Amino acid sequence: MTSLGHAQGTDFSGPPALGGAKRGTRVLVLGAGLSGMLAAYELRKAGYAVTILEFQNRSGGRNITLRGGDTVTEMGGATQKVGFSSGNYLNPGPWRIPYHHQGLLHYCKAFGVQLEPFIQINQNSWLHSKSQFGGKPVRYREFNSDFNGFTAELLAKAVDQHKLDDVLTPDERAHVREAMRDWGGLTPNMRYEKSVPSSLHRGYEKARGGGLSGIPELSQPFDPADIWKSGFWRWMEFHETVDMQTTMFQPVGGMDQIGKAFTRQVQDLIHLNCKVTAIQQSESGVTVTYNDGKQGGAVQQAQADFCVCTLPLSILSQLDVQVSDDLKAAISAVPYASSVKIGLEFRRRFWEEDEQIYGGISFTDQSIGQISYPSHGIFSPGPAVLLGAYMFRAPAYELAGMSPQQRIEQALAQGEAIHPQYRKEFLNGVSFAWSRVPWTMGCCSLWSEQSRKMHYKTLCTMDKRIVLAGEHASYVGCWQEGAILSALDAVKQLHRRAKGAA
Amino acid sequence: MTSLGHAQGTDFSGPPALGGAKRGTRVLVLGAGLSGMLAAYELRKAGYAVTILEFQNRSGGRNITLRGGDTVTEMGGATQKVGFSSGNYLNPGPWRIPYHHQGLLHYCKAFGVQLEPFIQINQNSWLHSKSQFGGKPVRYREFNSDFNGFTAELLAKAVDQHKLDDVLTPDERAHVREAMRDWGGLTPNMRYEKSVPSSLHRGYEKARGGGLSGIPELSQPFDPADIWKSGFWRWMEFHETVDMQTTMFQPVGGMDQIGKAFTRQVQDLIHLNCKVTAIQQSESGVTVTYNDGKQGGAVQQAQADFCVCTLPLSILSQLDVQVSDDLKAAISAVPYASSVKIGLEFRRRFWEEDEQIYGGISFTDQSIGQISYPSHGIFSPGPAVLLGAYMFRAPAYELAGMSPQQRIEQALAQGEAIHPQYRKEFLNGVSFAWSRVPWTMGCCSLWSEQSRKMHYKTLCTMDKRIVLAGEHASYVGCWQEGAILSALDAVKQLHRRAKGAA
Repeated sequence: MTSLGHAQGTDFSGPPALGGAKRGTRVLVLGAGLSGMLAAYELRKAGYAVTILEFQNRSGGRNITLRGGDTVTEMGGATQKVGFSSGNYLNPGPWRIPYHHQGLLHYCKAFGVQLEPFIQINQNSWLHSKSQFGGKPVRYREFNSDFNGFTAELLAKAVDQHKLDDVLTPDERAHVREAMRDWGGLTPNMRYEKSVPSSLHRGYEKARGGGLSGIPELSQPFDPADIWKSGFWRWMEFHETVDMQTTMFQPVGGMDQIGKAFTRQVQDLIHLNCKVTAIQQSESGVTVTYNDGKQGGAVQQAQADFCVCTLPLSILSQLDVQVSDDLKAAISAVPYASSVKIGLEFRRRFWEEDEQIYGGISFTDQSIGQISYPSHGIFSPGPAVLLGAYMFRAPAYELAGMSPQQRIEQALAQGEAIHPQYRKEFLNGVSFAWSRVPWTMGCCSLWSEQSRKMHYKTLCTMDKRIVLAGEHASYVGCWQEGAILSALDAVKQLHRRAKGAA
Repeated sequence: MTSLGHAQGTDFSGPPALGGAKRGTRVLVLGAGLSGMLAAYELRKAGYAVTILEFQNRSGGRNITLRGGDTVTEMGGATQKVGFSSGNYLNPGPWRIPYHHQGLLHYCKAFGVQLEPFIQINQNSWLHSKSQFGGKPVRYREFNSDFNGFTAELLAKAVDQHKLDDVLTPDERAHVREAMRDWGGLTPNMRYEKSVPSSLHRGYEKARGGGLSGIPELSQPFDPADIWKSGFWRWMEFHETVDMQTTMFQPVGGMDQIGKAFTRQVQDLIHLNCKVTAIQQSESGVTVTYNDGKQGGAVQQAQADFCVCTLPLSILSQLDVQVSDDLKAAISAVPYASSVKIGLEFRRRFWEEDEQIYGGISFTDQSIGQISYPSHGIFSPGPAVLLGAYMFRAPAYELAGMSPQQRIEQALAQGEAIHPQYRKEFLNGVSFAWSRVPWTMGCCSLWSEQSRKMHYKTLCTMDKRIVLAGEHASYVGCWQEGAILSALDAVKQLHRRAKGAA
């Protein structure tokens, strides 16, 4: 392309070319999530004889959508029945697709998944902390504008007072000054203050309108000291990270439309209710031992020439797996993140009707972490579901430790600090605590820089006849794209091995 | 609401309450654009007897959409036939609706206009200048990331070297430093350079992927001197202005769905092909003289008790209008912006397929100004139309001075500096030069701060029996919202006058 650099998001260069496979070579795929189903799809297309063993009574893995009537049973025994109205849903796992997740987007197109825009950045959403700005939420655009403005004012002052002459040429000084003035919304005398330029960014105290009643009043920026100490800039930075940039997409009707589309491609290969307990290999093949739920848990064995194992490391590390000690160490080295999502259904879209918030995310430093508003059904009447909590780390363990009822109460108690309509409009809710999900025991892999260095290559390298795949075997961890790209790399390795190459 | 401040976008507080009107009071509305049709709708609802005179053979005014088979004839005589494929369109006038244009959004809902997200910010779009970065386009995210990063690095340096101690307390210094590090993507030693934090913002040289092939390579930021001198920051600032912030919307199927919906409400009141030539008033009423195109241009007169005049000032200033000298001066005081839009149809969505650009805007300092990609039909095969040029001021006059064929050639010649696929994929195009439109002779009102002070209140104040409305009589000029809010203010004034109040 014509770009200067080649800075990219993720790496996808089209479906794998697996020509010349020995037809009938048997492959066992463990796990019918996206990575397992894609590996099976591509391998079968190349001529392999593929079987998929899946623990759950459904395919799709973490690609999942909850609707009214669905049941969620978690480790510990708590069961929730989803009470959403018809057409409403929550995506407890993946819920958005960045523009550069080209692998996933490719297969969505190939498999007929209809996508629609997911609204990620919303400059009218709220930023909130109980300890900042008197505990009251501030609009994203107000904070963002004031942060930029005060940053620009400070830097322009340093430049004007010749305090950066050691690193800036006279020309650069002039350019930086001009940039700060325009980008920061400064006045001609380089101040960020109540003025036309600042109100054009942060909004007016009395809005612009029409006719005699339309004369606006300028708004007063926050105190810069409050901006600096708030820490809210981390939520501005969030939108600058490459996986959170816009444009984003979601499948029309729920994220599980992707899982269903993948399933349609490999439906006949999938054996549900098969709990793998051991994976062994020899010079001649792979043997997988499992309990077959369709036969009362009877122990069964399956043989194949090769195996693609997509089980989450949190599960795989507990099984009897015959691989090298190095690979065993890698499998055990990656902790899994805890995460909780809570879906809340309300009588009406008060965030739209009362607060002019259409899609996007409000952030809080409370344990719910964020509130995200649906990108679909905007302007429609009747009940709607928002994402009332989504967080990782300590707050996720805190919420996962509660009963489902307690979690909903927490989401309401914290959410009403941002939306006072919460209690009045609430209908029902459901929570999904990933650390309590028996088939994954966590949300996704949490690589550290250190563990990457020590274990990543080992984890991703085919061990004789067994190769791992899944978001954990990628640099796009916790995203569906990681599962897709990892599966493609795994089947390429397997194919090279099957053809007898190194 | 719970916000600290009340910084708002535009001002809309619900439909007007026009209770107690004397039924049958006659009102003539001049112009069947959005402001005229809304004034007629609200006045009839309140009991007034309303007639609308419209110059064109269609209602909707500047709310317009071009589709295959449509014809555009401009002053000077040039005629274009639109060649777009079925389902494709160009909105030559308004094309997007910000979240805070609540007046327009209210009536869209009330009149059944279906809306969909309009993608405004796209962090993967291009920024381009023939004189910067070797004339090659750079990705928005790369520039944005480098601009923030180098700004943060400079300010952090000044803070660390105690050069801003006169304006920052020790606590503030620590907060600013932390903010710059996190927001700017700086390394722990406060540098913006090739690193994980900067690549997480600007993207990687070799993208992150899956398995063994997924190990990324960091990307190299641009030279800071190139960032500072580029001037590209004005395109970052563009997205921070309140009317350009996200979330935005567009009607499904073309902007004229709004004009059509308004028309459905007042269809029976509209007289098309009526060219107003004079507007007179006395103590007892208003007389409007017009040529009736349906009667071969015969001179006609219409009488009413009051008049709402929504003709663009560029037209009204040329008519015989019996109002105060002050109002006449106001009518003549506001120049109209020139603007040109060009729609280009291509064989395929190469911006999506080759460049991962889905909706949003690329900017260039060439006279085409920008290229905007459709927010609808994303991922669909077959021909698609993008906005190949949209600009104001001098470049607009330059393009308006060309023949339609020359304009298309300019759009292609300039556009291919950003998209080399242009010539190969081009099918056809259409241009719309607002300064050559006989019924508006310009795109929209261009108030200066000075002219606002001198003339705005006069322009918007009812003159005996005549009140003006339209985007020109608002602080939201050049937007449909201005027309809506102005119409509401005008009918309130008219209603007070009709009831005998001051």
